[in-house]
Amino acid sequence: MSVTLPKGFRASGVPAGLKSGGGPDVALVVNDGPQMAAAAVFTTNRVQAAPVKWSRHAVADGLLQAVVLNSGGANACTGSDGFQDSATTASRVAELIAVPTDNVAVCSTGLIGVRLPMPELLAGVDDAVRGLSEDGGVDAARAIMTTDTVHKEAAVTRDGWSVGGMAKGAGMLAPGLATMLVVLTTDVDVDPGTLDRALRRATLVTFDRIDSDGCMSTNDTVLAMASGASGRRIGEDELAEALTVVSQDLALQLIGDAEGAAHDIRIEVVGAATEDDAVTVGREIARSNLFKCAIFGEDPNWGRVLSAIGVTDAEFDPDRIDVGFNGVQVCRAGQIGEDRSLVDLSGRDVHVHVDLHAGGQTATIHTNDLTYDYVKENAEYST
Amino acid sequence: MSVTLPKGFRASGVPAGLKSGGGPDVALVVNDGPQMAAAAVFTTNRVQAAPVKWSRHAVADGLLQAVVLNSGGANACTGSDGFQDSATTASRVAELIAVPTDNVAVCSTGLIGVRLPMPELLAGVDDAVRGLSEDGGVDAARAIMTTDTVHKEAAVTRDGWSVGGMAKGAGMLAPGLATMLVVLTTDVDVDPGTLDRALRRATLVTFDRIDSDGCMSTNDTVLAMASGASGRRIGEDELAEALTVVSQDLALQLIGDAEGAAHDIRIEVVGAATEDDAVTVGREIARSNLFKCAIFGEDPNWGRVLSAIGVTDAEFDPDRIDVGFNGVQVCRAGQIGEDRSLVDLSGRDVHVHVDLHAGGQTATIHTNDLTYDYVKENAEYST
Repeated sequence: MSVTLPKGFRASGVPAGLKSGGGPDVALVVNDGPQMAAAAVFTTNRVQAAPVKWSRHAVADGLLQAVVLNSGGANACTGSDGFQDSATTASRVAELIAVPTDNVAVCSTGLIGVRLPMPELLAGVDDAVRGLSEDGGVDAARAIMTTDTVHKEAAVTRDGWSVGGMAKGAGMLAPGLATMLVVLTTDVDVDPGTLDRALRRATLVTFDRIDSDGCMSTNDTVLAMASGASGRRIGEDELAEALTVVSQDLALQLIGDAEGAAHDIRIEVVGAATEDDAVTVGREIARSNLFKCAIFGEDPNWGRVLSAIGVTDAEFDPDRIDVGFNGVQVCRAGQIGEDRSLVDLSGRDVHVHVDLHAGGQTATIHTNDLTYDYVKENAEYST
Repeated sequence: MSVTLPKGFRASGVPAGLKSGGGPDVALVVNDGPQMAAAAVFTTNRVQAAPVKWSRHAVADGLLQAVVLNSGGANACTGSDGFQDSATTASRVAELIAVPTDNVAVCSTGLIGVRLPMPELLAGVDDAVRGLSEDGGVDAARAIMTTDTVHKEAAVTRDGWSVGGMAKGAGMLAPGLATMLVVLTTDVDVDPGTLDRALRRATLVTFDRIDSDGCMSTNDTVLAMASGASGRRIGEDELAEALTVVSQDLALQLIGDAEGAAHDIRIEVVGAATEDDAVTVGREIARSNLFKCAIFGEDPNWGRVLSAIGVTDAEFDPDRIDVGFNGVQVCRAGQIGEDRSLVDLSGRDVHVHVDLHAGGQTATIHTNDLTYDYVKENAEYST
C-alpha cells in the first residue's frame, strides 16, 4: 500500500529498459487532490543532479501533483542537456495527466555521469501513466530499487487519515540524506508551509541520522505530498509525529539493507552538552572504517570508538567517557572497563552506548559494518 | 642506516615479547651529541595516549637525548597508571644511559586499551641499551613494525651533513599525522626553535598529506633530534628541505604499505583558490569509500569524485570541474568528457587529476584503495 494508502493517490511502476538487469525502473506517484500541498528536502551536496535542480524549482511554490522516478541512471553531471532531459520527463507526465509541468517533480538514481536514454524513458512514462492505480504503491516501490535487495514501504493510519511512504537506497547513505529517494504521501488537509516544517522535523531525526558509508549523493530527495482527500485538518505536531514514524521505519529499512552489511549498528550517544554534539560524535564513530571493520570482525574495539570521538570538537573530557557494547561497559572513564570477552557481537543488531558525561543531551545514529561484500559491491557497481 | 646515518646517533631494536607474533618490539635511538636539540609533532586527536602525553612534556624544553619506542601495545586509554608506565620506561632508559629522565621521549604502537606488560618491556629496555650501535638503525626500524610488511627507512646526505629517518604505520593513517611513529635524526648544529619550525614545514606537506583510511590515531608522533656532530650550521630553509625529502620518502613508503591496499593513489588538485581548498578537496576524495572501492575495481568512476568534492566548502563551480584518471580527462566542465573505457587502472599507481578552475593553488594527497584485505586485516587485527 505505502504511498497509495492515503486517499487521493495513485501510483505505478513499469519496466522501461533503463536498468541493465531488467525489471521495473520507472515509477510514478500522482496526487489526485483535491489539494496539492508539497514539500521536499534535497541533498546538501553542492554537486546536484539535474532532477534535483528541476524538482527544487518545481516544488518552490509548495505545490506538486505528481512525481516521476527512475532507476538505471542518476542524470547527474550531465550539464544543461541533462537538465533538459529532466524537464522533458516532467513535461511528458504533465501532458498525459493534464497538469502544469511545474507541478511534476523528477527523481533519478543510478550511475552518475551518463545521459538517460530518453526514448526508452519517455515510453516508460507513457506506460507508467497507463498503469496508474490506487493500489500501485508496491509497484512504484519496486521500480525505484537499484542495489536494494528488498523494496521499502511504510505507513501509519491515524484517526481518519494516514501517511504512507516508499524509499530506495542502499549505499552512499549519509547525513544530509543519502542516495536515497523517498516519497511520502498523506491525505490530510495541510498548507504547504506546515507540511514543509513537519517534513523537516521528521527528516532531521530520521534520514539525517543514518550513515551507511559517509558518502553523500548528488540525488538525495525526500518528497512529501498531501492530497487533503481525508478532509481532516491536523496540526503541525501531529503531522510531524506521523511523518517521523514512517520516516524512521523507512530509514531503518535503508540501513538494514545497506550494501553488504552484516551488522546493523545503533550508536546511542548520551550525556552530551548539546544535541549537535551527540550527533557529531555518533556520526564520527559511524564513519570510522576501523570501527566498522571491528564490528564486522565481532570485536568490541572500544579504542577505535575513542579514537573517533577524539577527532570531534564536541565537549568532553577524555578521562570521563564510558563506552558499552551490547550492554557490557568495556570502557569506563576513558579506561579499561569490563572484560571485552563478555561482549557478544554475533547477532545482527549491535548497540554501542557512549556516555560523554558532559550534559543531558542525546542522539542515536544508525549505521552498518564495513564488509567484504561492501567492497565487492562498490568495486563492481558501475562496471 | 637511516636514523644512524647522521653522526652522533646510536640505535638498537630487540625482542621483548610484547608483540604476539614475536620478533623485535623495543627500539631505542640515542643522541650522543654534542648537542641535543629536538622537536616533535603529535596527533591532534583529543584522546591522546600516555606516551604522547609523556613525550610532549619531555620535548617541551626543546631537548632530547633518546627516544624509546615499542610495538605490541599503544598504551592509550590506560589512565594514570598508563602514564606512569611511560614515565617508568623513560626513567629506565635515562638511568642506563645516564641522562635526565625528561630528556627521554617514549612512543608506543599497537592495540588501544591494554596495559603494557612492564616487566617484559623494562627487560627489553635493558637489552636495547646493551645493543646500541652506530649501525643499529635498521634494527630499530624493524622493531617498531606492527602490521607493516616492510620496515621503512630513508636518508639524504648533503654537504657534510645528513638527515635520516625511520617510520612505522600501515593503517589509521590520516591528516594531522596517523598511526605513525617517525623518528628523524640529523647531525647539523641547530637550535631547537629552528628545528621545530623546519620540522613543521616538512610534516605539513608530507605526513599531513597522506590519508589511508581517514582515521586518526591516539599515538601519532614525529620526533626530530639533532646531534650537531657534523659541526655544520645550516639555515632553516636548507634543513626544512632535507627533512621534507626524507619525510616524503617515508610518507610514500607508509602509503605504499597501507593495510590491504592494491593501488597507490595520487590525488592532485590544481586550480584551487587556496592551498587549503586544494588540500580539503584532495582529502575528501581520499576519504570517500565509494571512490576507494571504485579504484579497487579499476573503475574510473568520476561521479564519485564529484560527489566527494561537492560536500566540501572549497571554492568551485560544479560546472567547471575537470577530472582525469591516468591522463584521460573523463570529466570536462562537470560533465561527461573522454570515454572512460580509455582509462587503464590495472597498474599499482593511479593518478587522479582534479582542476577546480577557481585559482592557482595546488596540493597533492596520497591515499590507497579500499580492498577485501583492508577489511580482513582490520576485522581481525585485535582478536
